[in-house]
Amino acid sequence: MRIELLFTPQQIDEMTLREKTVVAIDVLRASTTITTALHNGAREVIPAATVEAAVKIAGNLAGDVTLLAGERNARMIQGFHLGNSPLEYTPEKVRGKSIVFSSTNGAQVFAKGRMARELMVCSFVNITTVVEHLGAQPRDFTIICAGTNGSFSLEDSVCAGMVVHGLAEGNPDGLSLADGALASMTLYRSYGRSILKMLKTGEHGRLLEELGFGDDLAYCARVDAVPVLPVMDGNVLKLKRDAEKKDIAGPVS
Amino acid sequence: MRIELLFTPQQIDEMTLREKTVVAIDVLRASTTITTALHNGAREVIPAATVEAAVKIAGNLAGDVTLLAGERNARMIQGFHLGNSPLEYTPEKVRGKSIVFSSTNGAQVFAKGRMARELMVCSFVNITTVVEHLGAQPRDFTIICAGTNGSFSLEDSVCAGMVVHGLAEGNPDGLSLADGALASMTLYRSYGRSILKMLKTGEHGRLLEELGFGDDLAYCARVDAVPVLPVMDGNVLKLKRDAEKKDIAGPVS
Repeated sequence: MRIELLFTPQQIDEMTLREKTVVAIDVLRASTTITTALHNGAREVIPAATVEAAVKIAGNLAGDVTLLAGERNARMIQGFHLGNSPLEYTPEKVRGKSIVFSSTNGAQVFAKGRMARELMVCSFVNITTVVEHLGAQPRDFTIICAGTNGSFSLEDSVCAGMVVHGLAEGNPDGLSLADGALASMTLYRSYGRSILKMLKTGEHGRLLEELGFGDDLAYCARVDAVPVLPVMDGNVLKLKRDAEKKDIAGPVS
Repeated sequence: MRIELLFTPQQIDEMTLREKTVVAIDVLRASTTITTALHNGAREVIPAATVEAAVKIAGNLAGDVTLLAGERNARMIQGFHLGNSPLEYTPEKVRGKSIVFSSTNGAQVFAKGRMARELMVCSFVNITTVVEHLGAQPRDFTIICAGTNGSFSLEDSVCAGMVVHGLAEGNPDGLSLADGALASMTLYRSYGRSILKMLKTGEHGRLLEELGFGDDLAYCARVDAVPVLPVMDGNVLKLKRDAEKKDIAGPVS
């Protein structure tokens, strides 16, 4: 099993993702938030690279079941229903809804990742679910870290390293690691003892604390608190079990 | 002193380099080779992003003092005088010569880095010279790792981390580290005990060994063996002391 890793999404060549299995990581906060939203009953999350695209997509959907969500530079977008704090995505707010989601970093990865053969959403809150899924279907995959404003982010890299470490523990000889995957595992082994402390060390975590989102950090550090697997299904993110139900029933017209 | 770090050159926005101090790292092998060539008496090294550009530049220079040098995918380019093994760049071959240099990864960084306010070439063989220079003129800088074919490379990142570590030792409170700079320091502290072993761990080092360049790895691992500072001077790389001589004497016509 070969593991490649991109520390920033600028490195993505969309076309080369076509046949790939992709693990998309944006710990603070898109991956955590989307996973929480789907676990709490959202019907689907539709990633949009730009605010304009989000508004346009939402305009084509029924208003009473659609929520506009996301952030720019960690702040809620004017006129949107939800920001990018996972704590906002309660069952009361999101059950049955289609959420059109645009964020500074993560949404870019999800939007580009539509070309992938398979794309799953990963963060600390669902990491063992991701590792178990990858371990159960041994094939090459690429981890894409969202980073922060185009730069390397510590928390995404440590999360990536925890995935690699989890697979290496079960199968140390069966892995072929690109240098980035190896380095991420080294970073996880250095910073993994306290995920919360690591989140508070990274630059984006420090910014979020300054902006009053300290509770978000504590939530995003809760390893395996939301043990579900969001995957890309066409152009939308759904829980894997829901995407599979549809596959069994045949395409919904 | 703020330290930013780019693990791959795709992240370079040439225009934003304009006012920046840049440390360009391609351990295997462009940084090591260029530093060796200048130390062994080459007049200058002219980086060229493409083979075509290299041939064109060389065509405009006097043939008897010009050498075409570099590699594509670790192999010498047909018709070129030198490859990218630092061991080829002996005083006998390079003294007094202008070397037009094109390599798969490093030359891209040097070619783009022309826009920088100051650009220095760094590898393990001249690392303390680089750290001392940075420490003596405390200002923000950006480390750019050449990586390998657009991907993260272990050896460039560990070398970057050794620079950050060297500066942090002298001035632990005076540094503001971007996440990438912090991560590189963590990698250096994990892998720095044996640079040669680390070079043999990374993918590009393993490829070079397979291609018969094992002696290059041993050379590239020789910390401070070539204690000089190559810098960008206009469009060419020179030793800093030679660039300064010219500044004192006025521009050479």
